[in-house]
Amino acid sequence: MKRKIFLETEIQNKEFLEIEDKKIQHRIKKVYKLKPGDTIFFVGNDLYEGIYVLIDPSTWKFKRVECYKRSLLPPREVNLFLSFIRKNNFELILEKASELGVKRVIPLITERSSWSTTEVSKRWEKILHSSLEVSEWGYLPEIGTPIKVKDLPQNCFILEKDGEVLDVKNIKDPINIVVGPEGGFSDKEKKIFEEKDCKIISLGKITLKTETAIFVILSLLNFPLK
Amino acid sequence: MKRKIFLETEIQNKEFLEIEDKKIQHRIKKVYKLKPGDTIFFVGNDLYEGIYVLIDPSTWKFKRVECYKRSLLPPREVNLFLSFIRKNNFELILEKASELGVKRVIPLITERSSWSTTEVSKRWEKILHSSLEVSEWGYLPEIGTPIKVKDLPQNCFILEKDGEVLDVKNIKDPINIVVGPEGGFSDKEKKIFEEKDCKIISLGKITLKTETAIFVILSLLNFPLK
Repeated sequence: MKRKIFLETEIQNKEFLEIEDKKIQHRIKKVYKLKPGDTIFFVGNDLYEGIYVLIDPSTWKFKRVECYKRSLLPPREVNLFLSFIRKNNFELILEKASELGVKRVIPLITERSSWSTTEVSKRWEKILHSSLEVSEWGYLPEIGTPIKVKDLPQNCFILEKDGEVLDVKNIKDPINIVVGPEGGFSDKEKKIFEEKDCKIISLGKITLKTETAIFVILSLLNFPLK
Repeated sequence: MKRKIFLETEIQNKEFLEIEDKKIQHRIKKVYKLKPGDTIFFVGNDLYEGIYVLIDPSTWKFKRVECYKRSLLPPREVNLFLSFIRKNNFELILEKASELGVKRVIPLITERSSWSTTEVSKRWEKILHSSLEVSEWGYLPEIGTPIKVKDLPQNCFILEKDGEVLDVKNIKDPINIVVGPEGGFSDKEKKIFEEKDCKIISLGKITLKTETAIFVILSLLNFPLK
C-alpha cells in the first residue's frame, strides 16, 4: 500500500507544503515514520496528487517532486439520499459509497429514523474524503445538508425489497437513489414518492441489509462488466 | 424487520422446537421479548423456514404454525479464496459475502498474511450462517479448511488492480475468485498462479480496498441488472 494522505487544501501551485494538521503530523511521524529524504503521496482537495519529499521534520516541510491532476471519473452520476440509519452503518456507507464512486450523499430525515440532525458533520466529509487515499477518483464526493422527504427531487429511485429491476441503460444521469431507515418509510412518505413520480426499484428477490444493498447498486452502476 | 433466528439444526420434521442454545434464549427473551402466543421465524440448517409460536417460556418450547423449504439460489456458483487479512475486515467479508450469495469461502494461507490458522473457526461459520436471517437464500454457505496457495485449484481468477475485466458471460461455474493479503502475493506465489493457469482480473482502473473489491465482484456476478 502506498503512503498517501488526503489534505483539505489545494496543492496544485505549491512547490512546498507545511503540514499543520496535528492528526496528519501524527500519521507522518508515528504511522509512516518518515525521515528526511523519504517520500509520500499527497492528494489535495483540488484533486491534484503529487509525490513529496520530507525536507524538514521540525517544520513538517515537504518539497514537491512531481504533481498531476487526477482524471478518472465514475461512469454514472449517482446521488445517494441516505436515511439516518444506525450510526456505524451510516458511516460504513459513507466510506464505501465514496470508494464506489458516489457523487453526493444527502442525509435524509424520515419519520422512522432513530436519530437525525439538520447539520452537516465535519466527520462525514472527512470519511468521504479519506476514501480518496485509496481510490483514485478525480472528483471530490460531496455531503449535502440533510433534507426531509418532502424536499426530495422528482423522479427518484426508491430502493426497496419489492420493486422493478433498475433498467440502467435507459435512465439518465443524475441517478437519485433513495434508501429508507430500518423501519421503512411511512404511508405519508410513500404518498410523497407517488406525487414526485418516484419509482420503486429492487435488486431481486433477496432481502439485503441496507448497507449491502447500497454496495450492490453502486457496484452495478459504476463498475460495469463486459 | 421480521424476528428471525437461524438454528444450527434441522427443522423440517419438527412440530415442536425446544431452544437450548443460551445465546438464542437471550435473544428470544431480552431482544425480542417474546411472550406466550407471540410468533417468530426460525430457519434451520436444512434451509427450511417456519413460523413458530411460543407456547412455554419456561422450557423455551415453540409450536410450528407453518414451514416451507427455501428455494432461492444465486445465479452463479462463486468460491472465494480469501487470504487472511485484518481480522475485522475478514469477518465483515464473511458476513457480506454470505448476503451476496457466495457458495463457499476458503481461507488462504499466504506468505504475506499478518495472521493465519489451519483450523476452521466456529465463529466464521456462525457469521456466514447468521446472514441467512436477513437474506432468503435457499442454500447454506460453507467455510472450507484453510489451504495454501499451492493447493489452489486450476484456473482461478486472481483479483488484482491490474488485470483483464472479467468476461462473466463466457466463464463457467464454479467461479474461483482469489483475493490476496494487504501486502500482495509474493513472486513465488505469482509463479504458482501461472503454473495453475490462473487469470489476473481487475475491476477497472480504480484501486479498491480488499473488502470493497469483494463486494463489487459478488454484486456483479450474483445481482445482474437488466
